[in-house]
Amino acid sequence: MEGEGKMLNIAVAGLGRMGKRHVSTLQARVDRARVVAVCSAAPHEVEWARNNPDYIDFGIKTYDSYEEMLNHAGLQAVWISTSTDVHASQTIQAVEKGLHVLCEKPLSTKLDEVETIIQAAQARPDLKVMAGFSRRFDASYRDAHAKVAAHTIGEPYLIRSNTCDLLDETGFFVQYARRNGGIFVDCTIHDIDLALWFMDNPKPKSCFAVGTLKHHPELAESNDVDNGVGIVEFYGGKIAYFYSSRTQSHGHDVCTEVTGTQGKVMVNVIPKSNNVVLADKLGMRHEVQPEYWQRFEDAFATEAAEFVDSVLNNKPVPVALDTGYMVMKIGRALQESLLTGRVVRFDEQGNRIEDR
Amino acid sequence: MEGEGKMLNIAVAGLGRMGKRHVSTLQARVDRARVVAVCSAAPHEVEWARNNPDYIDFGIKTYDSYEEMLNHAGLQAVWISTSTDVHASQTIQAVEKGLHVLCEKPLSTKLDEVETIIQAAQARPDLKVMAGFSRRFDASYRDAHAKVAAHTIGEPYLIRSNTCDLLDETGFFVQYARRNGGIFVDCTIHDIDLALWFMDNPKPKSCFAVGTLKHHPELAESNDVDNGVGIVEFYGGKIAYFYSSRTQSHGHDVCTEVTGTQGKVMVNVIPKSNNVVLADKLGMRHEVQPEYWQRFEDAFATEAAEFVDSVLNNKPVPVALDTGYMVMKIGRALQESLLTGRVVRFDEQGNRIEDR
Amino acid sequence: MEGEGKMLNIAVAGLGRMGKRHVSTLQARVDRARVVAVCSAAPHEVEWARNNPDYIDFGIKTYDSYEEMLNHAGLQAVWISTSTDVHASQTIQAVEKGLHVLCEKPLSTKLDEVETIIQAAQARPDLKVMAGFSRRFDASYRDAHAKVAAHTIGEPYLIRSNTCDLLDETGFFVQYARRNGGIFVDCTIHDIDLALWFMDNPKPKSCFAVGTLKHHPELAESNDVDNGVGIVEFYGGKIAYFYSSRTQSHGHDVCTEVTGTQGKVMVNVIPKSNNVVLADKLGMRHEVQPEYWQRFEDAFATEAAEFVDSVLNNKPVPVALDTGYMVMKIGRALQESLLTGRVVRFDEQGNRIEDR
Amino acid sequence: MEGEGKMLNIAVAGLGRMGKRHVSTLQARVDRARVVAVCSAAPHEVEWARNNPDYIDFGIKTYDSYEEMLNHAGLQAVWISTSTDVHASQTIQAVEKGLHVLCEKPLSTKLDEVETIIQAAQARPDLKVMAGFSRRFDASYRDAHAKVAAHTIGEPYLIRSNTCDLLDETGFFVQYARRNGGIFVDCTIHDIDLALWFMDNPKPKSCFAVGTLKHHPELAESNDVDNGVGIVEFYGGKIAYFYSSRTQSHGHDVCTEVTGTQGKVMVNVIPKSNNVVLADKLGMRHEVQPEYWQRFEDAFATEAAEFVDSVLNNKPVPVALDTGYMVMKIGRALQESLLTGRVVRFDEQGNRIEDR
Repeated sequence: MEGEGKMLNIAVAGLGRMGKRHVSTLQARVDRARVVAVCSAAPHEVEWARNNPDYIDFGIKTYDSYEEMLNHAGLQAVWISTSTDVHASQTIQAVEKGLHVLCEKPLSTKLDEVETIIQAAQARPDLKVMAGFSRRFDASYRDAHAKVAAHTIGEPYLIRSNTCDLLDETGFFVQYARRNGGIFVDCTIHDIDLALWFMDNPKPKSCFAVGTLKHHPELAESNDVDNGVGIVEFYGGKIAYFYSSRTQSHGHDVCTEVTGTQGKVMVNVIPKSNNVVLADKLGMRHEVQPEYWQRFEDAFATEAAEFVDSVLNNKPVPVALDTGYMVMKIGRALQESLLTGRVVRFDEQGNRIEDR
Repeated sequence: MEGEGKMLNIAVAGLGRMGKRHVSTLQARVDRARVVAVCSAAPHEVEWARNNPDYIDFGIKTYDSYEEMLNHAGLQAVWISTSTDVHASQTIQAVEKGLHVLCEKPLSTKLDEVETIIQAAQARPDLKVMAGFSRRFDASYRDAHAKVAAHTIGEPYLIRSNTCDLLDETGFFVQYARRNGGIFVDCTIHDIDLALWFMDNPKPKSCFAVGTLKHHPELAESNDVDNGVGIVEFYGGKIAYFYSSRTQSHGHDVCTEVTGTQGKVMVNVIPKSNNVVLADKLGMRHEVQPEYWQRFEDAFATEAAEFVDSVLNNKPVPVALDTGYMVMKIGRALQESLLTGRVVRFDEQGNRIEDR
Repeated sequence: MEGEGKMLNIAVAGLGRMGKRHVSTLQARVDRARVVAVCSAAPHEVEWARNNPDYIDFGIKTYDSYEEMLNHAGLQAVWISTSTDVHASQTIQAVEKGLHVLCEKPLSTKLDEVETIIQAAQARPDLKVMAGFSRRFDASYRDAHAKVAAHTIGEPYLIRSNTCDLLDETGFFVQYARRNGGIFVDCTIHDIDLALWFMDNPKPKSCFAVGTLKHHPELAESNDVDNGVGIVEFYGGKIAYFYSSRTQSHGHDVCTEVTGTQGKVMVNVIPKSNNVVLADKLGMRHEVQPEYWQRFEDAFATEAAEFVDSVLNNKPVPVALDTGYMVMKIGRALQESLLTGRVVRFDEQGNRIEDR
Repeated sequence: MEGEGKMLNIAVAGLGRMGKRHVSTLQARVDRARVVAVCSAAPHEVEWARNNPDYIDFGIKTYDSYEEMLNHAGLQAVWISTSTDVHASQTIQAVEKGLHVLCEKPLSTKLDEVETIIQAAQARPDLKVMAGFSRRFDASYRDAHAKVAAHTIGEPYLIRSNTCDLLDETGFFVQYARRNGGIFVDCTIHDIDLALWFMDNPKPKSCFAVGTLKHHPELAESNDVDNGVGIVEFYGGKIAYFYSSRTQSHGHDVCTEVTGTQGKVMVNVIPKSNNVVLADKLGMRHEVQPEYWQRFEDAFATEAAEFVDSVLNNKPVPVALDTGYMVMKIGRALQESLLTGRVVRFDEQGNRIEDR
């Protein structure tokens, strides 16, 4: 076969909304990747895949067992896009099989599980194990980061970042929310990652958060909110503050501002789904992307391509695995503060200290 | 004289940067006001005024004593634009003389002084006594408020508001800052006022703030910062969060977002000094107002005109005096939290409760 | 009276929509002007004025005869805001009475009348006679012009400029349109003025225009259109092109782009009535000014103040009178081209040359 | 081989800047296409391709002869990306060999050659022959077109459209320009296509154009300009006007406005390379795409995918071939008007009529 040896045989675990998209991305956007297998624990997804002409045409084998899929002949890598609670065990299984892994964020909502993954990966330095933080692959965030790295705004010291979702009135979200760890763990984690990335990994000093429930009262059962605001103070005079929401009327609205001593870089402060403006009796208006997929589709393609490239050409993975640890630590501290109403504090070594 | 009896004879106390502007505003933008006197305790300002052809042509008398100015024949009202520490005493003096008063914000940085002013005003219901909160007179904020009041965004429950100043490298700001009460009292007070206005006077539950010093280390002496972020949680599931800065590179940047259950209203999220865009090798750019004057000049004119109208036609003042009290209470709580690192809490009656 | 001798006594001729606004502007925005008289030929306007408490309070005398008003004791200047067909005769009458004149654009739709005004003004160099071109007083256009004059964009050589009005479905516009000279004379005249101003008075070489009728078929009777596009080629390799419309759905939309060899300056390419954005299910939108008054109210105040200043302090008027001549010449050439379908050409001395 | 029979074997003719990009697009963005061959008449391009590891890995054969490439075993389709002067002959050769063809715009700058291509294609209805007009595949233009087709703006009757390129000071452009047919044929052709698409193929009535030379005096030799403005009047009261430039300082600036009786749709009126804004001492600015590739890269991928889909699934090509004829007819009329200074007129059957 042409190009043999220069193609990565990869499988996708999970055929939910995102799993299907990852299959398409690998097929249509990554010329060095070949999807050879998929799996799902949901019978209707398995059936859908087995009857999908695209999957058939391209010879993708569908499994109903993750473990069996790992034994697919010639398989080299797995993209894990299952539900969060099995991310850790599936990542470790794949690593133990000698497979490269790209695991969707978060690695786990439990810090000790994240540590276990990191240890497993460290034991196999020949394998590429990467946590997916799609924003780092977005062209605008990369441009912004390049500007900051080039000292265009002096020293970056303050970040505002939002992850706000379109209100979902179908009930899908509330089902999903039960095991996502809470709004600061599920949404704000992206913003925390950006804060660490743009400010060069500052150490957290204090975390405080408040929230409110406006559309999804069911979230009260899991001690969660549908709108939350949090502040993280870092050692070294750096600050990040976040807003996450599940209830926006206008669309998926993710923006970030990085303030430095000589200027400010803003990403997506006015979200637009494209460059069309409609002028009529209501004035002038543009539409907003409904979901993160429309906003970050290209970023997922870049992420996939760079993961594949890191494996094929033995380069470091573009997002270090331990990034996922600190991000989760801060996300959980904010979620705890939301619940207790108290400030969560850390010393410079990252140990918890009691509130005064 | 034409229109006699339909004109308000007003004096301006203080001839600093803003005092001079208020004189001009009253002359050039308020056809029913006649500036008859000004005063200043600074000899160079007094001299400047006495030699100012405009003041001479329009017969404005310059005093070096506030008390003497209050005795100016025919005087009906005073606009107090002196330094904050004398706002309270001067307001009370004027009221006791039977004069209407428009006092620049803040009435005082001390809550007990604010109460004294309110009591003095209540004792003279025939007089108009008003605290100046210029944003409430800005056309965009009014349009936004009208939209919220018309339920365009459903129930408003979350506000983000910034007051960010252009970095001043002349030393003027640091001099000024010594007696302004701190960044949350001096800057954020405007944003707090907006939060109360847009969310219909919710009662504060908890306040938390952090800050950093990036350009003006001298502020450490007065326990202040040059960049601060704060969150106020209100009873009823409402939240406001604020960012104030003294160190922006690009200009005076004041923006507000009001999120409701059915939409969001944004004011000045992309600040522009006018509607000019320059396209060249750097891309496309627009300029930003350097100071709040350029942003709010029209609002000050509207404020002046409405104060004059309230006196001449015996209407309620457009901003109730006690607004100034709650705003200051919250501003001081944020400043305290900044200093102590602790959450400041209130019960529903507004009494402090100890942090858990 | 205070300031006597430093105030200009001025009358406003015409009490239509704009005449009333000019009275207010002079009263409320120009501290050195005193409106002493107004006149109208329309009985209902005269009656309205005589019963207007504001006019009464400020001692404004209302005349039903322009000629009588010119004899008002102490009158120094007249702002002519009547219908275009009497602009020329009224301007000349006022000049002959020794009064300063600010005449709304256009001086006349007939070129020979414009010449007569210019001659009358030249015969009285002690008087200030000025044609009102309000855009030259707009802060954004001034900023743009200052940037061009400072060579920020190199040599300006190409201008796009639009004058587009909100669709008027009340019938008012069609009534008005009968004697306005046509769309290129009534609307585009402003854009032509801007082209001459920004490109330093280039000489026209050829003019071509087309148009269409979409909402106001009645305009066909006066050989006019409700949407027109025209190109003016100037000697020296400079070009201007224009779009004027009476039928916009979204508001009053006036924009200008000046392209130079090193960049481009854009004015109001995205029109906004203020800095409010509403985000809801339709996306994000802002409103647009409904009329030129909302867009240019401040410019009219500046124009009035500068005219008054030029009289009181004997400065040149801010817009030279003969500007009105070339602007009308080009506007009429476009209107002719629209009608004939032919290119209208001029030699470098401004004489018509036959189409090839 | 997996998926055999569901993949299109395609060759790319021409390995200039765009040819290389098309190879990459087909490889990385079109999962149903397999690039099997490329060719170039330029020895350095042939050498570059033969040593390109990507081409080698994927088994792409490089030819130095177009004719030989057409005989490549299993070849099904050709993407012609050579210089314009051979588009027609190469398209016809490929059709005669029984190959499907996607030919870059323009099919030819000569109208009779365009007719020959159309005839050749009509003789082989089993083959897909398509002219590449990339804008029709751009997501924003499609959204705008969908809105217009849904009558969102009523009847569309007026179009403004620009194709403006970044100034190229390397000399590359002037070399290229020699055989591109002139600015209205090379650039404006895209805008003409949009006008026909959005207004449902109106018939041209008159064309007029002017231009100027500001940066590339060498273009005078080929009777061309580096900035041109043109108006096309269509039968039925429709109008389009265009601006094309080779000399923009800020980037590739392509925008379109479609005005209808009930509103206006605007595409890319403020061009942005991404959603980053930088705020610093100069104000707030964003960058602009330097070239059409950055603006339309996704559109080229969509175009390629839809062409491949039309072949594999025997669907009509997404842009009808005869579109290229009328577009070129209007483009050449504008270019003629630029040269002669005269209006070029057509009757309703498309025959030239003499200027009056």
